[in-house]
Amino acid sequence: MGALRLPALSSIFFSPSSAATAAARCFPLLSRCPSHFSQPRRRFSSPNFSVQSSPEKGIPSETQDHKPPIVQGKEKERVITPRSQDFNAWYLDVIANAELADYGPVRGTMVIRPYGYAIWEAIQEYLNVKFKETGHSNMYFPQLIPYSFIEKEASHVEGFSPELALVTIGGGKELEEKLVVRPTSETIVNHMFTQWIHSYRDLPLMINQWANVTRWEMRTKPFIRTLEFLWQEGHTAHATSDEAEKEAMQMIDVYTKFAYEQAAIPVIAGRKSKVETFAGASKTYTIEAMMGDKKALQAGTSHNLGQNFSRAFGTQFTDENGLRQHVWQTSWAISSRFVGGIIMTHGDDAGLMLPPCLAPVQVIIIPIWKKDDEKTGVLTTASSVKEILQSAGIKVKIDGSEQKTPGWKFNFYEMKGVPLRIEIGPRDVSSRSVVIARRDVPGKQGKAFGISMEQSTLVSYVKTKLAEVQSSLLERAISFRDSNIVDVCSYNELKEAISQGKWARGPWSAR
Amino acid sequence: MGALRLPALSSIFFSPSSAATAAARCFPLLSRCPSHFSQPRRRFSSPNFSVQSSPEKGIPSETQDHKPPIVQGKEKERVITPRSQDFNAWYLDVIANAELADYGPVRGTMVIRPYGYAIWEAIQEYLNVKFKETGHSNMYFPQLIPYSFIEKEASHVEGFSPELALVTIGGGKELEEKLVVRPTSETIVNHMFTQWIHSYRDLPLMINQWANVTRWEMRTKPFIRTLEFLWQEGHTAHATSDEAEKEAMQMIDVYTKFAYEQAAIPVIAGRKSKVETFAGASKTYTIEAMMGDKKALQAGTSHNLGQNFSRAFGTQFTDENGLRQHVWQTSWAISSRFVGGIIMTHGDDAGLMLPPCLAPVQVIIIPIWKKDDEKTGVLTTASSVKEILQSAGIKVKIDGSEQKTPGWKFNFYEMKGVPLRIEIGPRDVSSRSVVIARRDVPGKQGKAFGISMEQSTLVSYVKTKLAEVQSSLLERAISFRDSNIVDVCSYNELKEAISQGKWARGPWSAR
Repeated sequence: MGALRLPALSSIFFSPSSAATAAARCFPLLSRCPSHFSQPRRRFSSPNFSVQSSPEKGIPSETQDHKPPIVQGKEKERVITPRSQDFNAWYLDVIANAELADYGPVRGTMVIRPYGYAIWEAIQEYLNVKFKETGHSNMYFPQLIPYSFIEKEASHVEGFSPELALVTIGGGKELEEKLVVRPTSETIVNHMFTQWIHSYRDLPLMINQWANVTRWEMRTKPFIRTLEFLWQEGHTAHATSDEAEKEAMQMIDVYTKFAYEQAAIPVIAGRKSKVETFAGASKTYTIEAMMGDKKALQAGTSHNLGQNFSRAFGTQFTDENGLRQHVWQTSWAISSRFVGGIIMTHGDDAGLMLPPCLAPVQVIIIPIWKKDDEKTGVLTTASSVKEILQSAGIKVKIDGSEQKTPGWKFNFYEMKGVPLRIEIGPRDVSSRSVVIARRDVPGKQGKAFGISMEQSTLVSYVKTKLAEVQSSLLERAISFRDSNIVDVCSYNELKEAISQGKWARGPWSAR
Repeated sequence: MGALRLPALSSIFFSPSSAATAAARCFPLLSRCPSHFSQPRRRFSSPNFSVQSSPEKGIPSETQDHKPPIVQGKEKERVITPRSQDFNAWYLDVIANAELADYGPVRGTMVIRPYGYAIWEAIQEYLNVKFKETGHSNMYFPQLIPYSFIEKEASHVEGFSPELALVTIGGGKELEEKLVVRPTSETIVNHMFTQWIHSYRDLPLMINQWANVTRWEMRTKPFIRTLEFLWQEGHTAHATSDEAEKEAMQMIDVYTKFAYEQAAIPVIAGRKSKVETFAGASKTYTIEAMMGDKKALQAGTSHNLGQNFSRAFGTQFTDENGLRQHVWQTSWAISSRFVGGIIMTHGDDAGLMLPPCLAPVQVIIIPIWKKDDEKTGVLTTASSVKEILQSAGIKVKIDGSEQKTPGWKFNFYEMKGVPLRIEIGPRDVSSRSVVIARRDVPGKQGKAFGISMEQSTLVSYVKTKLAEVQSSLLERAISFRDSNIVDVCSYNELKEAISQGKWARGPWSAR
């Protein structure tokens, strides 16, 4: 390990918490050691999981016609493996029980169910605004790419060819040229950029697309690594190298802020080692998150592509002096994998725990009654409480169903990770007050009694509590992360840290 | 032609205009004759173009590496073929010049450029809210479907097998079973519904997905029929046939309202003949729109699938009496084709004409100055006018570039279909007023002078004018449509109407 050759990471390191800015012991710049989980795989791009995860439950054939092994359906009992006992089994149980996703019929594919998709929609909603604010326009490129395109950039084809899905038959006929189902779009983007970019006045060209991508992964895991996944991919072209570098840094910063402020995930932003750099990029910036099992999740990446693709595709512009130049480019992506990151950062033995900013349901109201004459009053009150919160922009739902007991519902919505629960019984109706329980603080300690139903009091209480849950999730994750990062100054210290299952932070030669 | 056997179409016929409710001569129910353009093609589904369109400019090989024939780039002169001279050439010219879309490298594919994509985003924004209001949740199904699934429903495979794209190689290996790249999702949806639906309490199940779909079309046309396109597909399962029918009708109604109120397209809602019914459906409802060349565009469809797919996939539930029953289903879709419908409904020789509700830019501000000392004042005033409109929720843009003349910009934004133009020159700066020109009323007649810049006056004037443009586009389209529909009572009258290039309306046996 030689001298630190990283760029000034401090400029891209976003740290709203004091914990995150704690000075490192060996050197002033905070950078992340490659953990023992990081597997050098050159073909890694953004949504891959740079972690040696335990092998998945075997799914033998291409087509899995059987039901997933996990208990489902409203009538069956929900059982979640304790997180401490088997993290991977816990993760799969949470996904199945909270109805976030299910296995698709083709090996390695995933169906994103409404509750899981709603989390992805919340992610989209936030990022889409940020992308537009930073000058990007959405558009859409075809997903079928001529095979020859992939071969144009040498390291790109080397990285991606092992995991391509190829269309060879179209409209009943064998195709002359195989078509690649988009694993990422740099090649087709450059093909089009070459037609659109003529002069420096056409630059910068800054676009984004929300799309599905397909990569033939052998070891899959819902949300984390699947054969097809959803993502956004930004692509930009600039007149200078500096501008491209600035853009790549800007976007990793957007991702970092998103992770901290919305997902309550205290990612560490940094630069990938050469061996982990995106296939075709000059530099890859990444945000890495520590999961509940202390493994690292690559949660988003931003690539400075240099002129690698513009040279391969002849993407040139005439500069202000009339000279032809190759454009400088970036690309950056966050995928539906992020949903997996949220589950594995915040969840506990009781199930999912969602940060209020991204929770599809922020408040669940459970009406409680025993006698029939109590029912109407309780339900009416519950509805009016719902109205009050809804009109204040809070995502709220009532579960007034009669098939399940209140106790069952408490567990169910805890398992679904709903940040706040409001209980309304006959006594609350008379006292015009409610009981509010926090998902992140179990038992009586997390419960507040006698909160007035008066509109402004209730709204302000609920908003305050949601903000508290949001920041408490972040603080907890920061303290977990920091208690599992060890500063090391020698190879022996590094090995020691790794053997303890921790992350090691130390000087890094960036070779 | 026998007695009218259509369902009470009046219940799904949405007609805010009196023109649309004009009684037909031969029978009281307003239904559309199959025009001479309607080609009986059983495999048609929502986003196909049921029109005998003129053949596309030949694109010979699978991969088209050449640039499209249309002049592009900011430095080149824009030329649009007059609409009256060659409707199809006009359509392609508008798409290229307004930078709505471009050809992708694979034959028949399309790149949706930011301006075209923004129209699609406006469509999504409206419909997404309506779908949620009517009880549907978004989710996502994998796009790769085992070939065997497609074969399970007899008419479905018959309809779709000629236009499938097949993945035969994945991760470098020949696959055991070919995989279909989603042409529509009924099969995979039913495979999953079968796992999720157990009892009547799981019904209705009402979902939607925004996705790309692939169909190996031989004759393609940007937005209208492409190898890959974007759409939403709703899928629902119900306990009774009545409920499914109600849902299918509800969704064609949502589409109809959208077409009238947002796109200003006076579609005619009705039921498809048996031969045009979706492959696998019991009934297909459609909204058909009259384009500027009087051809019919199938702009959206809603299918009552009966129990066809639930029987093929064994999608059953236990009813309240403990009996196993097959579910009743619907599916419904609107696609990016709708953007083509907007172009072909409202455009004129000058180019695109966008309904304000869906226009990415509703107001373009053109600052005009000659002398350098006028420039700052004009630009500052333009900015403050922009601020005023933007804060009132109006989509507004300034073009203050110096490379082009104001006259060039006038033409350019007319071609882009921007509903209103605001001109600000030095004299307007002194008089604190602006000139406002309507896209839909050419020349001096569409221009208003001396509109005060005072915030409330300006905002209310602009909002009123936008609403006027919106309703004037609809009225114009209704009057064009109605002047080209002839009521017929005999086969001879039908032939006569068709020979005049009109639509014929008459009794229809629905066989």
